[in-house]
Amino acid sequence: MNIVILLFNEFETLDVFGPVEIFGRLPQYYNLRYHSLQGGMISNHHGVHLQTEGLDFIPDKIDILLIPGGRGVRKEVHDKHFIDNLIALIRKSNYVLSICTGSALLAQTGYLNNKHATSNKLALPWVSSLNQKVHWNKRARWVADGNFYTSSGVSAGIDMCLCFVAEQHGYQVAIQVAKEIEYHWIEDRLNDTFALSD
Amino acid sequence: MNIVILLFNEFETLDVFGPVEIFGRLPQYYNLRYHSLQGGMISNHHGVHLQTEGLDFIPDKIDILLIPGGRGVRKEVHDKHFIDNLIALIRKSNYVLSICTGSALLAQTGYLNNKHATSNKLALPWVSSLNQKVHWNKRARWVADGNFYTSSGVSAGIDMCLCFVAEQHGYQVAIQVAKEIEYHWIEDRLNDTFALSD
Repeated sequence: MNIVILLFNEFETLDVFGPVEIFGRLPQYYNLRYHSLQGGMISNHHGVHLQTEGLDFIPDKIDILLIPGGRGVRKEVHDKHFIDNLIALIRKSNYVLSICTGSALLAQTGYLNNKHATSNKLALPWVSSLNQKVHWNKRARWVADGNFYTSSGVSAGIDMCLCFVAEQHGYQVAIQVAKEIEYHWIEDRLNDTFALSD
Repeated sequence: MNIVILLFNEFETLDVFGPVEIFGRLPQYYNLRYHSLQGGMISNHHGVHLQTEGLDFIPDKIDILLIPGGRGVRKEVHDKHFIDNLIALIRKSNYVLSICTGSALLAQTGYLNNKHATSNKLALPWVSSLNQKVHWNKRARWVADGNFYTSSGVSAGIDMCLCFVAEQHGYQVAIQVAKEIEYHWIEDRLNDTFALSD
């Protein structure tokens, strides 16, 4: 399965590289690709400068589209060109996974309408204000609704991707990856200790 | 405090970007720098291509030297040029932090001799064989001995760096970062469920 990671400036570091560590350990199943609208170097305020390819190099069929969050989301949600391109990518994707405030970008495409989704818990008041047709889950480590997977803040993306791996290839494959990276996998998507109180 | 991350090809993704996510959230305290022996693009088998600066651009005084692990370690431990450069960097560093098999590189410098240290638990039999003058801890999420901090496998680096932040700036600063990234911080360095049985 090819995984297209859509990057933009001011993406959140661990939103990207947590999932990369999970999927990257299973090269027999997954092939990671790093893309951005313009291609070239993408940066964030952690001093990360990452090489990406442009949209022209994206395969005709995307198995997994992965959307991180981060400060840059606050700009990109209002960028029609970005959202239009995201819509085109979703159309040719089999699965769409967002981490943290990446779900704000998905909400802007309309594809989450009438679906259940979640986001970073501290950012959820803002994210949910963007599109009230989405059923925003206030207490969830991650949410899967059809082919759309949305995770809570940053490190929750690691738990969601391990769950995705377990669904696709069985529990033993996922738990072996967690063991290799000595990660305390939160397997229960309802185990959300970071939910805000109402 | 400046943080110099010493990169090499085939570094482990999360060894680097877990700590980056922690320190990067505290720009009032930490400035992250990405370096490699030659400078330029550094890559790994997860398809990550990261821009780095060469050694000439490293400050005269390093506050924190951060050494990741990864497949590349198996090559670099036998590269005298790499180890000699690492020794020179340690000499001008105030703190040295390694993640996962990064401690194998530190062991080769001799700086861990007679010190307590740890490493990735699945790799520990190999790592400990490199230098038996090191007191290798078989059960530890991370170990701090003087100014040398060594963590267990991959995600243990996140716990160690949160602990380092707590020591430097207080517990509240560290727990706030953990909360922002919705991370279940393992605060107790002796809480090591990945230790191999004897």
